[in-house]
Amino acid sequence: MPVGTQATVKGILPRDLINDLDAKIILGNTYHLFLRPGHETIRKLGGLHRFMNWPRAILTDSGGFQVFSLNSLRKVTEAGVLFQSHLNGDAHMFTPESTVEVQLALGSDIMMVLDECLEYPAKHDAARAAMDRTIRWARAAFEHFHKHDDGLHALFPIVQGSMYADLRKACTEQLMELDARGYAIGGLSVGEPRGLSLEMAEVTVPLLPKDRPRYVMGVGMPEELPEYVARGVDMMDCVLPSRNARNGYLFTSQGRVIIKQAQYKDDARPVDEACPCYSCKNFSRAYLRHLYLAGEITFSVLATLHNLHHYLDIMRGIRQAILLGNYPDYLRRARQRAAEAEKEAPKAASQFE
Amino acid sequence: MPVGTQATVKGILPRDLINDLDAKIILGNTYHLFLRPGHETIRKLGGLHRFMNWPRAILTDSGGFQVFSLNSLRKVTEAGVLFQSHLNGDAHMFTPESTVEVQLALGSDIMMVLDECLEYPAKHDAARAAMDRTIRWARAAFEHFHKHDDGLHALFPIVQGSMYADLRKACTEQLMELDARGYAIGGLSVGEPRGLSLEMAEVTVPLLPKDRPRYVMGVGMPEELPEYVARGVDMMDCVLPSRNARNGYLFTSQGRVIIKQAQYKDDARPVDEACPCYSCKNFSRAYLRHLYLAGEITFSVLATLHNLHHYLDIMRGIRQAILLGNYPDYLRRARQRAAEAEKEAPKAASQFE
Repeated sequence: MPVGTQATVKGILPRDLINDLDAKIILGNTYHLFLRPGHETIRKLGGLHRFMNWPRAILTDSGGFQVFSLNSLRKVTEAGVLFQSHLNGDAHMFTPESTVEVQLALGSDIMMVLDECLEYPAKHDAARAAMDRTIRWARAAFEHFHKHDDGLHALFPIVQGSMYADLRKACTEQLMELDARGYAIGGLSVGEPRGLSLEMAEVTVPLLPKDRPRYVMGVGMPEELPEYVARGVDMMDCVLPSRNARNGYLFTSQGRVIIKQAQYKDDARPVDEACPCYSCKNFSRAYLRHLYLAGEITFSVLATLHNLHHYLDIMRGIRQAILLGNYPDYLRRARQRAAEAEKEAPKAASQFE
Repeated sequence: MPVGTQATVKGILPRDLINDLDAKIILGNTYHLFLRPGHETIRKLGGLHRFMNWPRAILTDSGGFQVFSLNSLRKVTEAGVLFQSHLNGDAHMFTPESTVEVQLALGSDIMMVLDECLEYPAKHDAARAAMDRTIRWARAAFEHFHKHDDGLHALFPIVQGSMYADLRKACTEQLMELDARGYAIGGLSVGEPRGLSLEMAEVTVPLLPKDRPRYVMGVGMPEELPEYVARGVDMMDCVLPSRNARNGYLFTSQGRVIIKQAQYKDDARPVDEACPCYSCKNFSRAYLRHLYLAGEITFSVLATLHNLHHYLDIMRGIRQAILLGNYPDYLRRARQRAAEAEKEAPKAASQFE
């Protein structure tokens, strides 16, 4: 799902998210919206959907991941996490209950519990302690949520456990007791090798109920999407398509295009000849390169439209293959293409890491 | 007409220029496009229309105004003007003939001759010398243009003469000999009081043929548009609506909105309740303020959409009033509104100067 951290998918208007991309759900960041403009402001203005004019689903994280990224600016206690705003240094506290409150004020459709997210690598005992706290916090969040539950929102617990299969399993089993409407797998994409993230999803997903959405947070590269789906994952979010777009890295069916390269100076072809997005239907690589080098924000708009289209098209292809019953075949071909692309452009690939 | 300096109206996609704004013509800057990506690159890619995917009219300036803004980086001779690129310091020369060549390569519908544009204030003899050179250059440009004229392009001479009515008249009379398809009035908006710019248009326009477009370059504020039209001007261009938009200054039917102001923090109203643009139909001042403070490029997109819509709506209103034969009445009401807005927000107004 596209990431709209500060109540906007950077550069993309809601009508384009719908008409061009047919995005069904976007992600907002609780930490950012809590600090600015503030959840009470958004509540007063009718909630996040109305504030940003987004008629479809919104998922918000709990802010935990962002707060734990602050490093020196935060302190964890059993009650919650004390942190300083990166904007002005103000002190704030997130508790399991308060982050539910904030997300209810935002009116998000899918809310996340506050969790403790460790860096990679983490020692086993530290990972266990963080996992245990995550479970206690999840219970507190659910207890609070049940008081306000009107049936219109879902609250997802988050499986933690660093890169330890035993912890992931233990965490999943305990969170299952919450009988949630969906489950998230967090603590991935924190610096570990990509194979390890997939492995953690692989040990976790089979333990989760088949009839509830399973969401892996913060992944991934285009070639990883089919891999997560193959392991039973239903939902993913990532800033990669939009952030890479703004930095001039474009994903295509033929591999990656680094648009600033001189080879595209006079290139009249679209970024991806197989892509039906507005950018590819109407503009050349040469034009996009020009906009990029000229620092034009129109570049960010066109590049983001394309990269998000590419990602959502992959997901559409995956859904189609599953419906037609030929996902194993789809996966085999996807792996083949990924291996070929890797062979052709190993250097370009590493710039995305 | 909206300004698209570097082959894009900053942040606005061509489809939105058409569907949202119904812009009939946009302006491109020869100086910028000559330097980057280069007119030969654009020619190779099918011309500026195709390069930027703009199916309607394009007017390009000659680059003269930009080059004369470089100050220390340029040297004027009878042959043309030698200048250094602001991008990399490379030396280039614009001649009356070469700027026609560049604009033909771009394929612009309305091209401008190279002119010598002075700062304000300028002494009478300096203004006369620049005017004489502008006339000689215009003749050279037309001579060159006639060799390539396929009837698909127009070349406009530019009336100069600083703020001296006698020079403006003399310049106009001599340029009339070129029997051009339209005429531009340049050398305004160079630091003079706004009343003086209008005065110069007023002495010039009556001397120009009624059946050819008359274009004042680089104006103006919303309340000035009806004034120029009242003096017989048909076309104007200005970066004000788009640049002010990006800086958070929004034009409305009720005066100006400086979006960063705290008074808009919880303001659920649109920027302009009377405006039917996409931004006003779908977003609150509070949301736009949030995007502005958060540094989101979506702000630039929405604000530019609104400001351009406001400008083009004024021009639509003017055309309508002229067609209905009640322009004097329209003008009277427009002046009344402008006087009231000035009374209410003199400080806000001065920030736009």
